[in-house]
Amino acid sequence: MGERLIVIGGTAAGLSAASKAKKLNPQLEVIVFEKSGYISYGACGLPYFVGGMIAHEQELIAVDAETMHNKRKISIFIHHEIVTLHRREKFVEVKNLDNDAIQKYNYDKLVIATGATPIIPQFKGIEASNVYYLRNVEDGIRLKNAMKTAEKQVAIIGGGFIGLELAEQLTMAGKQVQIFEAMPRLLPFLDEIYSNIIKTTLEAHGVKVHLGVKVQELITKYRKVIGVKTSDNKVLDTDFVVVSVGVLPATKLAKDAGLQLGIKNGIVVDDNMQTSDNAIWACGDCVQMKNLVTGLPVYVPLGTTANKQGRVAGENIGGGEGTFKGVLGSMVTKVFELYIASTGLSLEQAKVVGIDAVASLTIKGDKASYYPGRTDSMLCLILDKKSGLLVGAQGIGSETIAGRINVLATAITCKMTLSQISELDLVYAPPVAPVYDPILIAASQAIKEIEK
Amino acid sequence: MGERLIVIGGTAAGLSAASKAKKLNPQLEVIVFEKSGYISYGACGLPYFVGGMIAHEQELIAVDAETMHNKRKISIFIHHEIVTLHRREKFVEVKNLDNDAIQKYNYDKLVIATGATPIIPQFKGIEASNVYYLRNVEDGIRLKNAMKTAEKQVAIIGGGFIGLELAEQLTMAGKQVQIFEAMPRLLPFLDEIYSNIIKTTLEAHGVKVHLGVKVQELITKYRKVIGVKTSDNKVLDTDFVVVSVGVLPATKLAKDAGLQLGIKNGIVVDDNMQTSDNAIWACGDCVQMKNLVTGLPVYVPLGTTANKQGRVAGENIGGGEGTFKGVLGSMVTKVFELYIASTGLSLEQAKVVGIDAVASLTIKGDKASYYPGRTDSMLCLILDKKSGLLVGAQGIGSETIAGRINVLATAITCKMTLSQISELDLVYAPPVAPVYDPILIAASQAIKEIEK
Repeated sequence: MGERLIVIGGTAAGLSAASKAKKLNPQLEVIVFEKSGYISYGACGLPYFVGGMIAHEQELIAVDAETMHNKRKISIFIHHEIVTLHRREKFVEVKNLDNDAIQKYNYDKLVIATGATPIIPQFKGIEASNVYYLRNVEDGIRLKNAMKTAEKQVAIIGGGFIGLELAEQLTMAGKQVQIFEAMPRLLPFLDEIYSNIIKTTLEAHGVKVHLGVKVQELITKYRKVIGVKTSDNKVLDTDFVVVSVGVLPATKLAKDAGLQLGIKNGIVVDDNMQTSDNAIWACGDCVQMKNLVTGLPVYVPLGTTANKQGRVAGENIGGGEGTFKGVLGSMVTKVFELYIASTGLSLEQAKVVGIDAVASLTIKGDKASYYPGRTDSMLCLILDKKSGLLVGAQGIGSETIAGRINVLATAITCKMTLSQISELDLVYAPPVAPVYDPILIAASQAIKEIEK
Repeated sequence: MGERLIVIGGTAAGLSAASKAKKLNPQLEVIVFEKSGYISYGACGLPYFVGGMIAHEQELIAVDAETMHNKRKISIFIHHEIVTLHRREKFVEVKNLDNDAIQKYNYDKLVIATGATPIIPQFKGIEASNVYYLRNVEDGIRLKNAMKTAEKQVAIIGGGFIGLELAEQLTMAGKQVQIFEAMPRLLPFLDEIYSNIIKTTLEAHGVKVHLGVKVQELITKYRKVIGVKTSDNKVLDTDFVVVSVGVLPATKLAKDAGLQLGIKNGIVVDDNMQTSDNAIWACGDCVQMKNLVTGLPVYVPLGTTANKQGRVAGENIGGGEGTFKGVLGSMVTKVFELYIASTGLSLEQAKVVGIDAVASLTIKGDKASYYPGRTDSMLCLILDKKSGLLVGAQGIGSETIAGRINVLATAITCKMTLSQISELDLVYAPPVAPVYDPILIAASQAIKEIEK
């Protein structure tokens, strides 16, 4: 009999691992268990599904279970949860959530891709029936159904990426949105100047933004939230609540089985995505990663990373060789007409790990000065004063900011000096960039900042 | 008495050199002579000035002569042409074009930034009064005046970047445009597939495109062109003609003075922008450059390069140290809703210099598959089969293609391997990119292409 691979989790990381392993080793029996009712969905698309830009949840599904089975010869079980993992005997106990039946499955190799779960704040009223999260397709459907009612007012708790994307989408769908962020700024890992620009944009579109305000209690009536009580003792009416205050690795199974855990209880893996048990690999939002700049462990759950890690795990399981070297944590989000992107370390993050860091800010039009319709491109470069190297960058502006942050992510990866960055031969035409691209100006500014 | 720097040419390269040298060495007397009536104009903006997007030529001017004089203490003489350069005695003879008076100016250091001149095809009728070029502001004003007449039909000769930008602008301004390109494709340095996409787009906007057709004669009546006679013996009516078939370095002065010339008679300079005469620097569209990939001399006149070279010349003249290491020839253009960008070598260029090159083509949506409004991003990677390295890239798609080509330009500069490129941590959000950015997909495809 051939070897069996069991994969726990049927989204980005798990299915990437399953598909790659099976492709490299067609003899391998591959079984995927997924707790929810959906596999292979683009979780990052959920705000747009809720807002109505994407009509049907099926559009979020990249590959369906039938295709996985018929074309890739991978067996998929949805509504199946692994309840225990027996490492010594190499088997798992799986509960069929439709009928509660429990079955044992032996494995030769195992992938844990259990993802992350939303943090549930511990204030009163949180268990009310009209409190929503947005992590999986079921969450999306629940929230989308709530959107269809005549209820107008939504309170979003959390001013991170997903909170902001939801604020945009719910506003565009006709709701009155308030955001509550406990930190004094939106996207708290970015500098205050970014937060101010985003806040202004949100407010211009009718979103109310409460910063530095903790939610103390959700006021309920008949088990439904009707108001949000804040730390400054205000009560603000609302018809429903979406909570989006971050996620934590879903690693109870791994913990109970005694696997080594790291930051925030993310599973510790090596560059091959192998855990402390050499028959077990882990990937995606349930693992601890390595920051490419510092080499230090971090927890940055992102879809891009999950896909790549899954593929690397699958390569090593299938007999190939793959390594996942780490993350810059590059990301982008769109809030109405604003695009915000970042890569590497923020000033705060750099200081926390002991880097003598300085930030250099540049504001420059994203087209030739005489070309109509240009918008300002704001770039903030985070510099290590000792080495003179770039350790991070953030940008805000039009859609083109994404490409500019990607250039800087590439420069960080290659450890380019600021002077090399300032000399890059980048494309130019009046409708696309000024003759000195904002990247080149930012690098020149940064050189001066370092020389101060 | 202090030293004197004379700069011949008052646009991007010349003024960058003058400003930088004066900034580093305020004792230096700096005099700039410019043949035309305008300094410091953005020549790349001329198509948009002609089309009407930019109302006044003044908007194209970055810095005016008064500012140069009052703030930067640089003397500017417009309508002044250098007629002879005496290197041994270190003086130039300058003709005031307003009154034909000739004056001598001694120099200690000299910058030649005479730019390029349009190629004038040698067919019958070319001297007619309604034949236009588009190189400097005067050309732009002449063509813009022609645009104001009721004359409807324009023939553009040349299907390069400027020809295409003009085709867009003249069409948007209500003219009926025909393009004649002698080569079998538009943007001839790109592959045929690009040409086909651009042709389809131009035609959808009502532009007639004639490829592989040589213009044999301009049919004239009363010294005005009324038709274009082509190599296939057709005569196509037109009301006026714009010729845009490339430029050549304007180096008669340098040649007469015995300076060393290279490709297409571009002035030979070293990495400090110094010519074969160590009192003379040259920069911008009049010099030969070095290709960063091959190390071989090339002639790629671009505004980005001119600015950077001017600055480097000025640094060295002013007592600083600067080097200009070479060009990738990165460029971008917009043709209606299409953006076309390229960097490094094309397949043809790579083969010409003896590289065993192969092209790898990837077509991928520029947003998540489920996000509305995405367009295809087409990337072509040119690979050196021997080294496995990227030597060039071309892209066509939405505005975001510029950022993607910039990432690849950065990768070429850093000599990243394809595998390193495929692992880049690039930003992702459904409205901005698919989870595997087209760059990552293109790099993975290229690895397979190399392994074939």
